Amino acid sequence: MASLSQFHASHSFSGHKSITLHRNPRRIDSHSSHLIIRATSLSSDNSPALSQSPSSSAAAAPTALKHRRPADENIREEARRHNNCTHGHGFCAKYVPFNADPSSTESYSLDEIVYRSRSGGLLDVQHDMDALKKFDGNYWKSLFDSRVGKTTWPYGSGVWSKKEWVLPEIDSDDIVSAFEGNSNLFWAERFGKQFLGMGDLWVKHCGISHTGSFKDLGMTVLVSQVNRLRRMNRPVVGVGCASTGDTSAALSAYCAAAGIPSIVFLPANRISIAQLVQPIANGAFVLSLDTDFDGCMQLIREVTSELPIYLANSLNSLRLEGQKTAAIEILQQFDWEVPDWVIIPGGNLGNIYAFYKGFHMCKELGLVDRIPRLVCAQAANANPLYLYYKSGWSDFKAVKANTTFASAIQIGDPVSIDRAVYALQNSNGIVEEATEEELMDAMAQADSTGMFICPHTGVALSALFKLRKSGVIGPTDRTVVVSTAHGLKFTQSKIDYHSKEIPDMACRFANPPVHVKADFGSVMDVLKKYLLSKDSKI
Amino acid sequence: MASLSQFHASHSFSGHKSITLHRNPRRIDSHSSHLIIRATSLSSDNSPALSQSPSSSAAAAPTALKHRRPADENIREEARRHNNCTHGHGFCAKYVPFNADPSSTESYSLDEIVYRSRSGGLLDVQHDMDALKKFDGNYWKSLFDSRVGKTTWPYGSGVWSKKEWVLPEIDSDDIVSAFEGNSNLFWAERFGKQFLGMGDLWVKHCGISHTGSFKDLGMTVLVSQVNRLRRMNRPVVGVGCASTGDTSAALSAYCAAAGIPSIVFLPANRISIAQLVQPIANGAFVLSLDTDFDGCMQLIREVTSELPIYLANSLNSLRLEGQKTAAIEILQQFDWEVPDWVIIPGGNLGNIYAFYKGFHMCKELGLVDRIPRLVCAQAANANPLYLYYKSGWSDFKAVKANTTFASAIQIGDPVSIDRAVYALQNSNGIVEEATEEELMDAMAQADSTGMFICPHTGVALSALFKLRKSGVIGPTDRTVVVSTAHGLKFTQSKIDYHSKEIPDMACRFANPPVHVKADFGSVMDVLKKYLLSKDSKI
Repeated sequence: MASLSQFHASHSFSGHKSITLHRNPRRIDSHSSHLIIRATSLSSDNSPALSQSPSSSAAAAPTALKHRRPADENIREEARRHNNCTHGHGFCAKYVPFNADPSSTESYSLDEIVYRSRSGGLLDVQHDMDALKKFDGNYWKSLFDSRVGKTTWPYGSGVWSKKEWVLPEIDSDDIVSAFEGNSNLFWAERFGKQFLGMGDLWVKHCGISHTGSFKDLGMTVLVSQVNRLRRMNRPVVGVGCASTGDTSAALSAYCAAAGIPSIVFLPANRISIAQLVQPIANGAFVLSLDTDFDGCMQLIREVTSELPIYLANSLNSLRLEGQKTAAIEILQQFDWEVPDWVIIPGGNLGNIYAFYKGFHMCKELGLVDRIPRLVCAQAANANPLYLYYKSGWSDFKAVKANTTFASAIQIGDPVSIDRAVYALQNSNGIVEEATEEELMDAMAQADSTGMFICPHTGVALSALFKLRKSGVIGPTDRTVVVSTAHGLKFTQSKIDYHSKEIPDMACRFANPPVHVKADFGSVMDVLKKYLLSKDSKI
Repeated sequence: MASLSQFHASHSFSGHKSITLHRNPRRIDSHSSHLIIRATSLSSDNSPALSQSPSSSAAAAPTALKHRRPADENIREEARRHNNCTHGHGFCAKYVPFNADPSSTESYSLDEIVYRSRSGGLLDVQHDMDALKKFDGNYWKSLFDSRVGKTTWPYGSGVWSKKEWVLPEIDSDDIVSAFEGNSNLFWAERFGKQFLGMGDLWVKHCGISHTGSFKDLGMTVLVSQVNRLRRMNRPVVGVGCASTGDTSAALSAYCAAAGIPSIVFLPANRISIAQLVQPIANGAFVLSLDTDFDGCMQLIREVTSELPIYLANSLNSLRLEGQKTAAIEILQQFDWEVPDWVIIPGGNLGNIYAFYKGFHMCKELGLVDRIPRLVCAQAANANPLYLYYKSGWSDFKAVKANTTFASAIQIGDPVSIDRAVYALQNSNGIVEEATEEELMDAMAQADSTGMFICPHTGVALSALFKLRKSGVIGPTDRTVVVSTAHGLKFTQSKIDYHSKEIPDMACRFANPPVHVKADFGSVMDVLKKYLLSKDSKI
């Protein structure tokens, strides 16, 4: 396996320029009668500049003209021309065993292909916090804020706008990005007021995204690192996974963007082509196998140990580095004010740890002074973490997961159980659960106030209902519910609900269409009755 | 009908505070060793401040502390507390006949409910440009830039961050917003390189949105104005439309967010519940009528002339004010550099005019010095504008629209034909068309490079293929293709394509799954063959 020094050598060989320091304030608009001064210590490519003295920054003269890149240069080449100043800061990261004993010296370069620690445990991406701490919280806030809403490569992405905290050593040129992130933080005004008596309730719509789920955030990191390995001539011929859902969709999309072969294993006759349409459309090599899902998992593990195919499995710690940026983004969208609660649906349980890690990093680096309390919300049909929590963390047992409308979290033996417990214990966290009826009702209630959420978000909202009822969450607590997929991926369950076609479920918020004869009188009668019921003035 | 002065009276009566001027620079981070200065002339609520002298702004002392709103105050109340400074500037807008003779004095307050001019023509929202011109281009750019990525009410929205240019006189408190806009401007690196030899090709993903289409941008404006009228005690008991698609989805979502009854008329037995799931989930009153689509249109027109139901039809000029912000947003995301081309799918043809209007306004107010050339892309099965263009604008004829996969633009007699011609003639524009095979192939090609687009975007990409082939669009031209809906709304057409189940279509980019026996040897054989075909190193 390659050592860190080998990597640096091979990397600088691949056309890497020497490091230079920039001081090039962004455009200064001094000729306006309404003067705007925007002198910052950021260099022209929005990378941090070293050893900037306060006085030189404050006095920055409004002379810098905005460059316009030449017509034959694309944004990737433009980024290359500006160098990657971040390499000068010694920012770096490595794999270490998750929550290792302080005396452990086990670590791996991110340029190695390694999924588990020597003892078979989980890995974690550990950043050199001392290097990052050379810059204070205000510095990072300003840097991240300066990158929002633009198309500068790669900082137009909500993930890569935090590049120094994600994969600090990757060359911008190796990044595979769809400008993911920067997702809607929606103020759930009517839902909060009507159903919960809350004025400060928010839904972080991670699913209003390129592939319709939050998985984009992690996959851009994983595929970028694979892209880097391939450019370093490491033998990685493709990326594979066995997933019926959001993971295969995100994997295929990012591989397609990079031209990297993606391989998806699926059980034949158990999956509809509708579930496959994203990987198929995104050009994945989709193998339909005469076996069940476990058989697919077994086969892809065997195959990837024989062939140099990178396995995009759910224990991959690179993906969490991307996912954690959603937490940083929430703080940023609140102008770096910390919410009181963040509620996250949990299945394989990587995401709750990713959110913890993002919040914790912001605190450790001085961007905020506390972190929110985290709530993990599970479907009652797949609730091993909930049972573990209820046992006082004394007795973890995997469960047999039963079918749930929240299909992406139908997991009885979560890979990231240790990560989730760590996150919850360090955030004064709580675990809640939701029955099928509770989660579908919550989804319908949310939709009736203008959202269009997935059943997993319904699980999180059900948890919120319970915690409000018990008084744990107060009426003025600023609370964020994390929505993990777009409702458009779950239209069938919504149709079943509103058609009242779900066995043993009252579907009490169903809103079926009303059939009316197509004549003026009949329509007027029906409409007037409806409008009167709405207490309107006719 | 209410006059403008009546409106102002009733409005200030409804709890409106007196106008005060703010000078309250945003947080100054002066205690950092890496000094960041962000002194701007914006007031604390991001509204423009009047008569700011350059010197006072430049010397702004770092004394202002960031307020944190009290826990029992929501963001709407916070906005109310800060007043709406914009009212002090005399920014205002009114309805006028579209492209009226300069001598025309016909105009209407936006607080009147009026869909057409006296002569039955289209209306346009006309802004007081002299009032807006009191601030120069740099002022507006800085103002808009300062609002991106936050959750300040209502400026966290990509539409309402341009409030002064949209509905300047509406109180922020009346706005109904889901923080729409700020959508992904995606760099189509691989698609451009692989299929078109282009390095500067972009896709504006207006469909990666709350309801999955660009209609959110217009509907937030329409429903906000309706909300205002209701609070002014105007008799508006609900909002209605006859739409099978994106319009009814967006209308229902925004009405749901505001608690305003929404009413959707649809032909029974011609629409699947899947097409209705958004309005149903969003609590619309959906009437299923024993007639065809034209019958529904006829009935809703009759009913809305009897009952005080606002008609959210496609000639509504308020919606275009929201849609135009997508054009402004493109410029903003490019750091106010102007692309060479913008390609927009066209059916009812309001959107192409909205884009023109947004670009033109930026030029007129000095934010940019030119506007892009516009291309309108039509399905060949519904191409009245294309035929008109080809006739040298000499002979417009409505056509019978044939079925197209690009279902939202299957329109033979477009409402906004005059608006589109105006936009094209004033932007040195072009009209192109795409056959069903062309648009579906283009969609599949785009998806194979990591996108997941709708058939309408396929129409726009087909137009781009043609204009590149003819040399009209050059390889280094910065080109933006407007994507109007999320591909997740069109999974069935993708399934049909990749299953090669479309009559008379080769589906030459289809990528069906491969069936393999579930044993290690068979899987390895298939995989090796695939990977070798990808020219990888095994």
